[in-house]
Amino acid sequence: MKYYLGLDIGGTFVKGVCMTADGKILAEDKCDTGCENGGQAMCDNIAALCSSLTGKVEGQLAGVGAGCPGMIQSASGTVKFAGNLGLKNFPLGEELSKRLGVPVKVTNDANAAALGEAKFGAGKNYKNSILVTLGTGVGGGIIIDGKLFEGGCSAGAEIGHMVIERHGDMCTCGRRGCFERYSSAAALTRRTKYAMEEDAGSAMWTKYTSQNCTGKTAFDFMDSDRSAKEVVDWYIKYLACGLINLANIFRPEVIMLGGGVAAQGERLTKPLQSILDKEIFGGNDYATVTVVTASLGNSAGAMGAAALWL
Amino acid sequence: MKYYLGLDIGGTFVKGVCMTADGKILAEDKCDTGCENGGQAMCDNIAALCSSLTGKVEGQLAGVGAGCPGMIQSASGTVKFAGNLGLKNFPLGEELSKRLGVPVKVTNDANAAALGEAKFGAGKNYKNSILVTLGTGVGGGIIIDGKLFEGGCSAGAEIGHMVIERHGDMCTCGRRGCFERYSSAAALTRRTKYAMEEDAGSAMWTKYTSQNCTGKTAFDFMDSDRSAKEVVDWYIKYLACGLINLANIFRPEVIMLGGGVAAQGERLTKPLQSILDKEIFGGNDYATVTVVTASLGNSAGAMGAAALWL
Repeated sequence: MKYYLGLDIGGTFVKGVCMTADGKILAEDKCDTGCENGGQAMCDNIAALCSSLTGKVEGQLAGVGAGCPGMIQSASGTVKFAGNLGLKNFPLGEELSKRLGVPVKVTNDANAAALGEAKFGAGKNYKNSILVTLGTGVGGGIIIDGKLFEGGCSAGAEIGHMVIERHGDMCTCGRRGCFERYSSAAALTRRTKYAMEEDAGSAMWTKYTSQNCTGKTAFDFMDSDRSAKEVVDWYIKYLACGLINLANIFRPEVIMLGGGVAAQGERLTKPLQSILDKEIFGGNDYATVTVVTASLGNSAGAMGAAALWL
Repeated sequence: MKYYLGLDIGGTFVKGVCMTADGKILAEDKCDTGCENGGQAMCDNIAALCSSLTGKVEGQLAGVGAGCPGMIQSASGTVKFAGNLGLKNFPLGEELSKRLGVPVKVTNDANAAALGEAKFGAGKNYKNSILVTLGTGVGGGIIIDGKLFEGGCSAGAEIGHMVIERHGDMCTCGRRGCFERYSSAAALTRRTKYAMEEDAGSAMWTKYTSQNCTGKTAFDFMDSDRSAKEVVDWYIKYLACGLINLANIFRPEVIMLGGGVAAQGERLTKPLQSILDKEIFGGNDYATVTVVTASLGNSAGAMGAAALWL
């Protein structure tokens, strides 16, 4: 039996899975990324992980794929730059391939997660979908007609860096008002902290401080506390704005929400759907766009990386 | 010799061209749209135009294509709705095909123009391009890997309806702060009018009034008048914002600017390129995006419609 190995490279850990063509996971494990010792050391760690994983699986390894943060030239498997990993023009595919003895495909980690969700998760019944990951930043990937769309030279799909508030907050990318400044889990946490500091009587103080509040805090108290509800409303309005921009451009069948905040489920998707139905260009009857939560959790990236071979 | 007939349906006129597969125009003409008398009457007018055009050309008509404003279901050739033409669920392709005796393909007019520019105009040497038309609104079309990308159910690519200023001006689409509220020729004219009314001493008053100023006025005086220069700077900053959003998502090789304002040429493209080079995600060295003006003028739509068969 043929199987595929997918890698999801993060700043701290690398997650690996062995998977059949229909998405059944045969083995999974993780290792330290170790990128503080450079790209070569990282590749050594990953090769050891792969060797341990393939040792647990019977059958023929048909391909290895890797999702990696940063700007990736997927045609050559090169990391053009990845700030978090400290890599620049690093031939990741080639270096892994050398160690593993098989060809390795590489894409951006957010793109890999989108492909995973599209093939095996919340998007599996659709040909056109977008994954929007609400984490430290806002990442995402776009699936058009069943295929991953990475933009020209695989340098696009940077949906978090779409300005939605021209004079807004400064973003790490150098522009102001990017989608991710408002819709990331980090932005939600910042806003919660601010709301708590402005409202000493908020019920949020009964369980959290403005130092340990998270993206969950405001949702936890939204039914009983006005400040918490205001934070959630604020968050949902901005998130809806970015999602509708994407819907007007791509008109996908589904927009899938991933990352920690997506655990809120219908508390998030219901109001978002309601705003989208009202505001999407031309109404949402023709070419309906549905907002759902992603379903693969943190396996999406590794499974999608394996799916680069499918 | 085979040839193709392309139609560009506007609110007032329909432009038609007969064209070879390599974009040589064999005949062109126009007729009144006449949509005030309904879709059937409009199709009668168009059929007469086609008959007159094909009468002037030797060879075999290999296909007819039409670009039509509004939301188009291109798979069936149906106009889902087109406010300007007063059409709703109108089977345009079928009705034209009945009259002409050949199959007719239909797409949105902005998409047709993008395909025209991509095949025969400013985008002909590139596989990935975006046309942004700066007219009454902001229209546009997206070419991915040489093919027109219309979005799911051909209902996407509404780039003018991407919010770039969350709390901005009210748009006709029902949202606030859409790209087209800032970057259309109409927006430029509005801003010029406002600037003139705020500055009674502006040199713009020597040739224009706040009633007859156009999208050209501020550019005409930008070198000699501070208010005019401010209008141009304002316009270019917003336009750059929307273009960079598109560049970060699609990372095309070229962004082509069409419509009346594009006649400003380098006065527009030079500062836009300079902002884009600075602000595009990850810098503009890898996967370089270049801003150019479109080159086919008002033939782009009809030529692109014909190119639906190529």
